[in-house]
Amino acid sequence: MSRGGRGCFITLEGIEGAGKSTQQTYLADYLRARGREVVVTREPGGTALGERVRAIFLDPALPDTGADSELLLIYAARAQHLHELILPSLARGAVVLCDRFEDSTYAYQGGGRGVPAARIEVLSNWLLQGLQPDLTLWLDVEPELGLARACRRSTQDRLEQETVAFFTRARAVFAARAAASPARIVRIDADADREQVSRQLLAAVQERLRL
Amino acid sequence: MSRGGRGCFITLEGIEGAGKSTQQTYLADYLRARGREVVVTREPGGTALGERVRAIFLDPALPDTGADSELLLIYAARAQHLHELILPSLARGAVVLCDRFEDSTYAYQGGGRGVPAARIEVLSNWLLQGLQPDLTLWLDVEPELGLARACRRSTQDRLEQETVAFFTRARAVFAARAAASPARIVRIDADADREQVSRQLLAAVQERLRL
Ligand SMILES: Nc1ncnc2c1ncn2[C@@H]1O[C@H](COP(=O)(O)OP(=O)(O)OP(=O)(O)O)[C@@H](O)[C@H]1O
Ligand SMILES: Nc1ncnc2c1ncn2[C@@H]1O[C@H](COP(=O)(O)OP(=O)(O)OP(=O)(O)O)[C@@H](O)[C@H]1O
Ligand SMILES: [Mg+2]
Ligand SMILES: [Mg+2]
Repeated sequence: MSRGGRGCFITLEGIEGAGKSTQQTYLADYLRARGREVVVTREPGGTALGERVRAIFLDPALPDTGADSELLLIYAARAQHLHELILPSLARGAVVLCDRFEDSTYAYQGGGRGVPAARIEVLSNWLLQGLQPDLTLWLDVEPELGLARACRRSTQDRLEQETVAFFTRARAVFAARAAASPARIVRIDADADREQVSRQLLAAVQERLRL
Repeated sequence: MSRGGRGCFITLEGIEGAGKSTQQTYLADYLRARGREVVVTREPGGTALGERVRAIFLDPALPDTGADSELLLIYAARAQHLHELILPSLARGAVVLCDRFEDSTYAYQGGGRGVPAARIEVLSNWLLQGLQPDLTLWLDVEPELGLARACRRSTQDRLEQETVAFFTRARAVFAARAAASPARIVRIDADADREQVSRQLLAAVQERLRL
């Protein structure tokens, strides 16, 4: 999986209700106003195949999906996402803003569902062969606060039915990964109001990437 | 992935039109008449999740599925198949008759589409951790003959649109794997008529498994 190209790959991470989708829109508008081509996408999903996989993944009618199967579905969607959208966009110089990526896999399937990180790493290496986002914006919200925001929004999918304990474990994984990769992952205080979160985010992007 | 149980895991392999589905029905009837519980299943598929994955996989509207993505989808379906159906059935002593399994992955995604066998092996080891069928019945048919049989049957799915060259490569992989695992894989001459194929199949099952 080779990069090439002059583009920039930014991922937004964090638990439910952290504000990833909200801030993705904000950042896309900001970058477009400055003349950049921006590709807005998400995982699981981002391609026709990925959205079909996402529908399987979030379907409350398929409650017994095993941990291995869930993980392989996520990587199947990710493989197509890279092949069809992310790598070609980066190759022509676009900024790719992706709502969730690899770190969410470690947080949710690893920390949340208990798949050993070493097992995730085998699939990660198999697919990505060293590819990494240029910058990861980790929107760090208190699980109770994030869930309260997400619940106000709409009906719950299968993941949103998880407990606070699940999201607390996921958050601990984001924290550990941020500590291990300070050059890539920036923690953003996402308990703050929308405007304050946007301001922190912009500062991180300007400092790290000079876009 | 541990076996346990007194069951018996038999896979049917071979290219399109070899007669796998036909002979699966025959063998299931035979074993049931002898009082065995038989679980008839197939890959990709075999579970609700697997059938959803199979639909993605065979959809002619998704023609640009990358090789990595296709392979991961197959393993996602296989993971759920093992978790939900195959292992529990074997644990309670059933005979599991599975139309396609691991060898088809090496034949189609490997030989057919050109994914290196070493890359398949990483996923195989990741998931199966040594689990193997007790017996694999390889229905070996001439590609032209198999395709002629399959074409007579119905509309073509994405796989059946592949060329004779594709199935010739797939067949070579089945042959190589049969040569490498003579204790597990039995070659059946599937150019023969239905009754002759059934007779060979039964001889192999009786000789190898004493069912
Ligand atoms: N900083 C904020 N303060 C208060 N509410 C917010 C804030 N950011 C987003 N929201 C609101 O909280 C809800 C969840 O936000 P959003 O959908 O952006 O989160 P998300 O991280 O994308 O969640 P999910 O993982 O479920 O997609 C939305 O209704 C949004 O309008
Ligand atoms: N030995 C045989 N001689 C002639 N026709 C056969 C024979 N076995 C099966 N057929 C017929 O050939 C067609 C394909 O057989 P079948 O569906 O069993 O193959 P298959 O290996 O399951 O194919 P696929 O991989 O496409 O599912 C069917 O119409 C079937 O009735
Ligand atoms: Mg969102
Ligand atoms: Mg068949």
